[in-house]
Amino acid sequence: METELIARLRQQLPSHPLLKLGIGDDAAILDGAQGADWVVTVDMLTDQVDFLLDRVDPRRVGRKALAVNLSDLAAMASRPVAAVVALVLPRKGGMELALALYEGMIPLAEEFGIAIAGGDTNSWDGPLAVSVTAIGHTTARGPLRRDGARPGDLIVVTGRLGGSILGRHFDFQPRVGEALALAERYSLHAGIDISDGLARDLAHLVEESGCGAVVDLASVPISEDAVRLSDQRADGMTPLDHALADGEDFELILAVPAEEAERLIAEQPLDVPVTMIGRFVAEAGLWQQDSSGHRSPMPVRGFEHDLT
Amino acid sequence: METELIARLRQQLPSHPLLKLGIGDDAAILDGAQGADWVVTVDMLTDQVDFLLDRVDPRRVGRKALAVNLSDLAAMASRPVAAVVALVLPRKGGMELALALYEGMIPLAEEFGIAIAGGDTNSWDGPLAVSVTAIGHTTARGPLRRDGARPGDLIVVTGRLGGSILGRHFDFQPRVGEALALAERYSLHAGIDISDGLARDLAHLVEESGCGAVVDLASVPISEDAVRLSDQRADGMTPLDHALADGEDFELILAVPAEEAERLIAEQPLDVPVTMIGRFVAEAGLWQQDSSGHRSPMPVRGFEHDLT
Repeated sequence: METELIARLRQQLPSHPLLKLGIGDDAAILDGAQGADWVVTVDMLTDQVDFLLDRVDPRRVGRKALAVNLSDLAAMASRPVAAVVALVLPRKGGMELALALYEGMIPLAEEFGIAIAGGDTNSWDGPLAVSVTAIGHTTARGPLRRDGARPGDLIVVTGRLGGSILGRHFDFQPRVGEALALAERYSLHAGIDISDGLARDLAHLVEESGCGAVVDLASVPISEDAVRLSDQRADGMTPLDHALADGEDFELILAVPAEEAERLIAEQPLDVPVTMIGRFVAEAGLWQQDSSGHRSPMPVRGFEHDLT
Repeated sequence: METELIARLRQQLPSHPLLKLGIGDDAAILDGAQGADWVVTVDMLTDQVDFLLDRVDPRRVGRKALAVNLSDLAAMASRPVAAVVALVLPRKGGMELALALYEGMIPLAEEFGIAIAGGDTNSWDGPLAVSVTAIGHTTARGPLRRDGARPGDLIVVTGRLGGSILGRHFDFQPRVGEALALAERYSLHAGIDISDGLARDLAHLVEESGCGAVVDLASVPISEDAVRLSDQRADGMTPLDHALADGEDFELILAVPAEEAERLIAEQPLDVPVTMIGRFVAEAGLWQQDSSGHRSPMPVRGFEHDLT
């Protein structure tokens, strides 16, 4: 639904001379003069869709509502500056809930040095929705966009993928420091964070870049959670299936020129592993390649809010 | 509830070196270098509280969701630049609803030269909520804050007040051009837009400024809507009561040094009337003065989301 809405709106939405990048990336970019531009992103989390308020500590919900936005700033290789928070609270217990949400947000904001600059608080007879808008600053290396991947670039991911639903989808660390460190030390062509699943987010990236990608299945870094989830569910989905399809890893997918990527992989400059999982190609589309070298179209699995 | 929440959070919320003004005003201010700072504000509108979706054209809802944010930028005497939009839609008919909301927003964005720079679209089993974050630029005259009113300043309002519920609460014109024109031509000390009602918003302003205000009741400009509403309802609320208490006029309350205010009132530089309705005083609090000169505390009426 969101993809279709963006497709239908993209040409219609009004622009502004200071708008350098509009809808369709992890964040928008506004001209900031003197080198540093401003990066703006918004994400809304809702009860029963993104969390079950009767089963999760609201502090974790508050933390996540800010963290997903920090992850979008990370995907733009930008420094977080400020956030504003819009809440709509169920009437009963609203004040306690609001305080708990902020109690979850504040330590994360402090950890990442971001101001909570303002907000709007409402109540109603409906369930909880939390909307956070985060604003960051680009660095001298510029923003990392979705549309810069070139055929021949290698696909690099941070961390290990899959099974975030076992807990990591709440308690993940946004890869802000990692993105800034990588952008500082290496030439990066494009990036996106994994919110909808590796396959789907890689599909977004190649679509924006006007190229394709081949994923080497044997290289995909699989998290222990993906293994546990596969064991627990025993529904035929392998750990690799989870690594490809599960959403909310909030790791980074990067397009890196081949020589840079090889240096990056050899140096392993982060506290989390950085893995080369394939390459970008000229032909549009998404492929998977198995260990025998056999290539087939990759099913674009992964979460999208379904509405029609 | 919002007032209490802000009071409880204000000292706890983390800041950032670029944050010049945080929670408690119509918008936050971020240091933008080279004179122009960035102004950020967020407002969320919700079904059954701010509108009844089954009785109002969703294009009017979309327009209003952007317009209330433009009014906040006006209250800061800032130039609108961009907005991002977070939606949570009921599952049934969500796509059509989303398109209608944007159809209402886009013409207003074009009229005010603001980019719609991005968004987040979700669906759920709950009612519609629309959250818009708007970003503006300060001018060389600087932002108009709530905390600058000084004893001796006169209270100036734009337009005529009360009865907005008869339709103006949807179709109002945000006073962006008016605020910029006034800030350009006159020295203004402070400002706020009327969203919660003249009395309540003036109370916000004097609280932030650390002073008080006396409203000359005979001077308050009363809209025709306030007269009609008083007639229709026949509940004992006079047109003046509506002008003082009704929310969502989205006119401006300004604190203007006395000589400037007299020049402003004489020149009437706007297409809408500009009226002097009283003065700021050193003693904290809000008073009303009748035509005989009798002064009494002004009841702070006006809408606030009630939650406890």
